[in-house]
Amino acid sequence: MAAAIRYAMRHSGLTGTNPSVATLIVRDDGQGPRIVGRGITALGGRPHAEAKALSEAGEKARGATAYVTLEPCAHHGRTPPCAEALVAAGVARVVSAAADPDPRVDGKGHAILQAGGLAVRPRVMAREAASDLAPYLARHAKGRPHVTLKFAMSSDGCIGREGSGQVFITGPTANRQTHLVRARTDAILVGMGTVTEDDPSLECRLPGLAERSPRRIILDPDLRMEPGLQLVRTARRTRTTLVTRADADRAKRVALSDAGIDFVACAMVPGTTRVALPELFEDLGAMGLQSVLVEGGASVAASFLEAGLVDRLILVVGDLEIGPGGIAAPILFAEACERFHLRERLRFGADRWFEFESRN
Amino acid sequence: MAAAIRYAMRHSGLTGTNPSVATLIVRDDGQGPRIVGRGITALGGRPHAEAKALSEAGEKARGATAYVTLEPCAHHGRTPPCAEALVAAGVARVVSAAADPDPRVDGKGHAILQAGGLAVRPRVMAREAASDLAPYLARHAKGRPHVTLKFAMSSDGCIGREGSGQVFITGPTANRQTHLVRARTDAILVGMGTVTEDDPSLECRLPGLAERSPRRIILDPDLRMEPGLQLVRTARRTRTTLVTRADADRAKRVALSDAGIDFVACAMVPGTTRVALPELFEDLGAMGLQSVLVEGGASVAASFLEAGLVDRLILVVGDLEIGPGGIAAPILFAEACERFHLRERLRFGADRWFEFESRN
Repeated sequence: MAAAIRYAMRHSGLTGTNPSVATLIVRDDGQGPRIVGRGITALGGRPHAEAKALSEAGEKARGATAYVTLEPCAHHGRTPPCAEALVAAGVARVVSAAADPDPRVDGKGHAILQAGGLAVRPRVMAREAASDLAPYLARHAKGRPHVTLKFAMSSDGCIGREGSGQVFITGPTANRQTHLVRARTDAILVGMGTVTEDDPSLECRLPGLAERSPRRIILDPDLRMEPGLQLVRTARRTRTTLVTRADADRAKRVALSDAGIDFVACAMVPGTTRVALPELFEDLGAMGLQSVLVEGGASVAASFLEAGLVDRLILVVGDLEIGPGGIAAPILFAEACERFHLRERLRFGADRWFEFESRN
Repeated sequence: MAAAIRYAMRHSGLTGTNPSVATLIVRDDGQGPRIVGRGITALGGRPHAEAKALSEAGEKARGATAYVTLEPCAHHGRTPPCAEALVAAGVARVVSAAADPDPRVDGKGHAILQAGGLAVRPRVMAREAASDLAPYLARHAKGRPHVTLKFAMSSDGCIGREGSGQVFITGPTANRQTHLVRARTDAILVGMGTVTEDDPSLECRLPGLAERSPRRIILDPDLRMEPGLQLVRTARRTRTTLVTRADADRAKRVALSDAGIDFVACAMVPGTTRVALPELFEDLGAMGLQSVLVEGGASVAASFLEAGLVDRLILVVGDLEIGPGGIAAPILFAEACERFHLRERLRFGADRWFEFESRN
């Protein structure tokens, strides 16, 4: 299963709205187990992994064991559902990892296999498989995109210094790693505070990956965006969406539209000047976004944490000390360990990189 | 309710992934019914209609009747669900039209109202309301975009003449009407046959609506698209998506990508050269598309009819006669009347325009 999960990662982020799934067909004819068919969701999402693996295995699938990283699909279109294909090929046993929360599957894939007389062993390394499938699982289970919150903080728990614009807390390796995270996500989200202070482009600046720059989403309910800013100047190159109240300045909206910006309307938390985030994420999900990377600043990060919308938290801790006048991080390391499950710790030069996963 | 449904149509197609819904709050203080609050889903989709109507009505909502074109929402975010807002405002009675198939609502909106002591009368003019809400309803009830199939045919039931390219069957008024239908849809879909024969731009050519040209989707499994064609030359202006097999010519794909074209991978109907349409439409739905207009040609239209994917059929019948060598329409008028429900018949000059709705 570990091999299947590693294999599935090869097309991670390259399979459109279909999850990147792998199937390995293994048989043992007395000389130890041997892989006789390998399949992975094709680039763009179709065909599915099982079809490929079964066609590679041919007659050797009969009596073999199939390892699948996600429950095989159960619903009919013009191609047979993968669960039925496994039955038809005479596979004897299926070992599966993650369950598929899509209401058209959701246990029905496993049920088809069992009804076909196959032995089914579900939830083998489910957590490991789910981690790479998280955006797909979030869309079906939560009805919204998967949210990663990422920020860098100094060794004394600050994310910047009051009034001094962008502070470079982390080094070049951690920053390249951030661009890799960006390239793997559907959209990056920041607040207007970050935009006016740093005038960022939020593009992916890794060589060869510029084309994979995700859509940029800016929380800008009162339409403070200015035409001279980088985001507007590059809007024709990288899709840029402002989250704005329906009643914001009409003329300004038209001018920004002409520059290539598009808009999503938001509701506000009653009695505040804050965007209603669960409603926004419901809409972003309906728009087809599967994953959003929230990159700050402090108050945006705090509202995502408060709304319980953070599925993955990436904390990068530099060895810089900010000292007096520092802006406190919205969550400290100890608190993150309490609220989240620490999944990975890496080190890039002097920077430490921590990845947490939501406990629910 | 009829007034509410007409009012809702004002923002039709302009409310993002939220449906365009209207609420009228009506009270009768002895001098006949009077509208005291009106609300419509805001441009872009948020806030919802009920909030607006209740805030306009203020204290006058107490004891009044609310007419809503869609069951009020029931799920919590940072703004109160509309069903709870109606209860809190002291509304006495709710008359609602379409039911909301979104699993987070689906009867729960009406249940909240009843639990709050309100009289609820559901399904009043449900069919009329559902017609304008069809794309939203299709997304939740069928898990795919709403499909309109539209074609023009001659008085003798042909859609063209063998080998003579595009035949102009209908007149200018019906053609302008077609562009209006295009402007209201998320995407237009054609097959490569139409593209190579007619080299169409598929853009909306109505003055003032060019900006609302929908995304263009081309069934091109074997990547026969050529760089010189109109669709490619205008791809930077109007989003263009090719439905292509994952294993199609890599170099050609890269060149077309560089021209601004994007791709969706498809599965094929086993043993044929035809795209598996239900699988494709599942993916288009997951990408956030709510409505697709299929504009031909004959074999594409036939495969949509055969797959049972047509929710609305628009048949435009010109008074031209094609005669020998004509290409037969994929469905004739009498057959359409049998399989679909005839909802509307209009006349534009010599052309007759028929709109049918699926019976399921």
